[in-house]
Amino acid sequence: MAKEGTDMTEETEYMIDKNVGKEAENVESSGDPKEMRAVILAGFGGLNKLRVTKKAMPELQDGEVKIRVKACGLNFLDLMVRQGTVDNPPKPPLVPGFECSGIVESVSENTTGFEIGDRVMAFVNYNAWAEVVCTPVDFVYKMPDEMSFAEAAAFSLNFVAAYMMLFEVANLREGMSVLVHSAGGGVGQAVAQLCSTVPNVTVFGIASCFKHAAIRDSVTHLFDRNVDYMQEVKKISPEGVDIVLDCLSGENTGKGLTLLKPLGTYVLYGASNMVTGETKSFFSFAKSWWQVEKVNPIKLYEENKVIAGFSLLNLLFKHGKCSLVKSVMDKLLCLYDQKKIKPVVDSLWALEEVKEAMQRIHDRGNIGKLILDVEKAPTPLMASDSTETSEAGEEEEEPEGDNDSKERMPFIH
Amino acid sequence: MAKEGTDMTEETEYMIDKNVGKEAENVESSGDPKEMRAVILAGFGGLNKLRVTKKAMPELQDGEVKIRVKACGLNFLDLMVRQGTVDNPPKPPLVPGFECSGIVESVSENTTGFEIGDRVMAFVNYNAWAEVVCTPVDFVYKMPDEMSFAEAAAFSLNFVAAYMMLFEVANLREGMSVLVHSAGGGVGQAVAQLCSTVPNVTVFGIASCFKHAAIRDSVTHLFDRNVDYMQEVKKISPEGVDIVLDCLSGENTGKGLTLLKPLGTYVLYGASNMVTGETKSFFSFAKSWWQVEKVNPIKLYEENKVIAGFSLLNLLFKHGKCSLVKSVMDKLLCLYDQKKIKPVVDSLWALEEVKEAMQRIHDRGNIGKLILDVEKAPTPLMASDSTETSEAGEEEEEPEGDNDSKERMPFIH
Repeated sequence: MAKEGTDMTEETEYMIDKNVGKEAENVESSGDPKEMRAVILAGFGGLNKLRVTKKAMPELQDGEVKIRVKACGLNFLDLMVRQGTVDNPPKPPLVPGFECSGIVESVSENTTGFEIGDRVMAFVNYNAWAEVVCTPVDFVYKMPDEMSFAEAAAFSLNFVAAYMMLFEVANLREGMSVLVHSAGGGVGQAVAQLCSTVPNVTVFGIASCFKHAAIRDSVTHLFDRNVDYMQEVKKISPEGVDIVLDCLSGENTGKGLTLLKPLGTYVLYGASNMVTGETKSFFSFAKSWWQVEKVNPIKLYEENKVIAGFSLLNLLFKHGKCSLVKSVMDKLLCLYDQKKIKPVVDSLWALEEVKEAMQRIHDRGNIGKLILDVEKAPTPLMASDSTETSEAGEEEEEPEGDNDSKERMPFIH
Repeated sequence: MAKEGTDMTEETEYMIDKNVGKEAENVESSGDPKEMRAVILAGFGGLNKLRVTKKAMPELQDGEVKIRVKACGLNFLDLMVRQGTVDNPPKPPLVPGFECSGIVESVSENTTGFEIGDRVMAFVNYNAWAEVVCTPVDFVYKMPDEMSFAEAAAFSLNFVAAYMMLFEVANLREGMSVLVHSAGGGVGQAVAQLCSTVPNVTVFGIASCFKHAAIRDSVTHLFDRNVDYMQEVKKISPEGVDIVLDCLSGENTGKGLTLLKPLGTYVLYGASNMVTGETKSFFSFAKSWWQVEKVNPIKLYEENKVIAGFSLLNLLFKHGKCSLVKSVMDKLLCLYDQKKIKPVVDSLWALEEVKEAMQRIHDRGNIGKLILDVEKAPTPLMASDSTETSEAGEEEEEPEGDNDSKERMPFIH
């Protein structure tokens, strides 16, 4: 991230009045061609740590592809990055975002497989939420012709994670049953669709009540997240389920393990229960960490159970498994071509609306994926806008990355 | 086990002088046709809790097959049964043993698939170490014509466990690497053979030095069990291994998890480190239990790792997975027919030699499987016989099941 630090010195402050969408367009077209718009996280904390600035265009490194970004995926993990609750985050200021879609603008020498103009989707180790992104060629995939940029940005992370958990880690087969938390979210909807590609799979979904009408058809059984789902599952399937996919952590780990059938697999792929408010709560963090039942392997032996952890980003950026991910992406694009899977896009947001988008995912209001649409102009706020309300109570702490506040101005004011 | 209790009242004492093999044959042929020879564990404890007696023939229950036993498998788990260190053992006196091969003697009404005279191998929930065994038809499999009874008794438990761990739990595929403890044992040798059915699999085996010459060809790399195997594996494969199969437990669990590559799977399938002497040691038991690193699922998430427990006997007798095991057995018999796998038999022992056989497995002296050959006459002891020596120091405790000592006489004296 040393390079990023250098970039930041060249950063130009850029303030957008939310009600003047035109201004954004003007600045974009009249700007320095070596600069680009990007979402910046100035320091770990609340929504007010985010803003849109102009910053220097990234320079293409050896083995990389430069992409003119059209759309970016917003994930729950981005909230945790913002709060600083992820493992080993880079030092802010940073550009968040791990996935995008767009058009290849240039390709480094000796890099094959892509040409200028190719429509692609890509993983990026931070820095996705910008107009231009450079990322190693191993993380870039060609988009099917019929896929929109928004769909592509909704596709990569959620479907690859869902596929690998179901088929690489847990070995989903005909006749099995799957319990998935946050069934209405991006991964949850990808899981539901992938389960439907295997004959006779029962999906137990857990989601907030207000989403039930919208997602009822995607799963076999749907439970409210506020009910005792263990009881409900056992009523239908007393012997339990074959696979539990949990992005919440905390007490759900013990519950998930208990619900497993023999030879069943519990997969933890997130810890969103750590996020209880807008800023990092050390209490929630510690509670989530310690509430997790530490598992005694001898108990797993007696019960014939499997517990797995899955982090796609670590797999890609720390563990070097990009060729495996590439092979998974190939299979997924096959399924997409066969119209067996299709990413569910919840809503599109301008870069300048990243706060509202984050608030929506925090409130678990989304059904499917939230997309930052780089070319979209911000929509005027409603009087009842929830972000305005939540801003009143934020800013409980000042992380160390926040000493550049003189440089920052909130883009909604 | 209520039925077993009734049987025991009919039990006839049967004493065999070790040096008079003929006597056994005489008694066998002249005995009551409703009686049979069996190994009895009179109470939990040392080797002297074992003896051969006559007891009532089991009666065929609905859904069962009655088998005239030819050979029985002896597993490390049988030592743990003897010591009382298994989970929920039946109350002694009991007949140990979980697997046998033999000839079908009768089949209960409405039970299809087997005929009198069929050569079969079978799982039994205790009671295998006897001349006649009754077990549910779901646990019985036809033997290939070219398989000997000793091979069949060496086949079922070890190969099914090895196969399921490698392919059901851990998903072994081309190019992967496997670390297996006790590589010279029955499961270890089955694992090595099954790994060789998949292209380009590297097997790291750990075994006592004196076995190395005999098993060197079965694995890719072989380490002495007294060396720091983590260092040795990392020298060869710095990134670790894909699968660790551990029957020891204790500190090996933490080491195994550390050695895993991302997406790798650690499988615990035994806890033989709990056995440190001839009788149950609560200190070893507690040490093994607590030395096991309790695993935090969030750490698994960050590292993309999988931890599994596997107990074939629980799977069969508690968790009702016999149809899955049947399908695995079918695949294994295919591999056997193709001469891709072949059980390794270490040695054959008469029922009356069960103590020596147990001592051999306790001392980890075996290469492959120990078999109790029901028709074998005991071999005269050597002057240096290790069992005699070890008996001097045993009998440190009298478990509650041992109040029937008036009925018992050691068969070696």
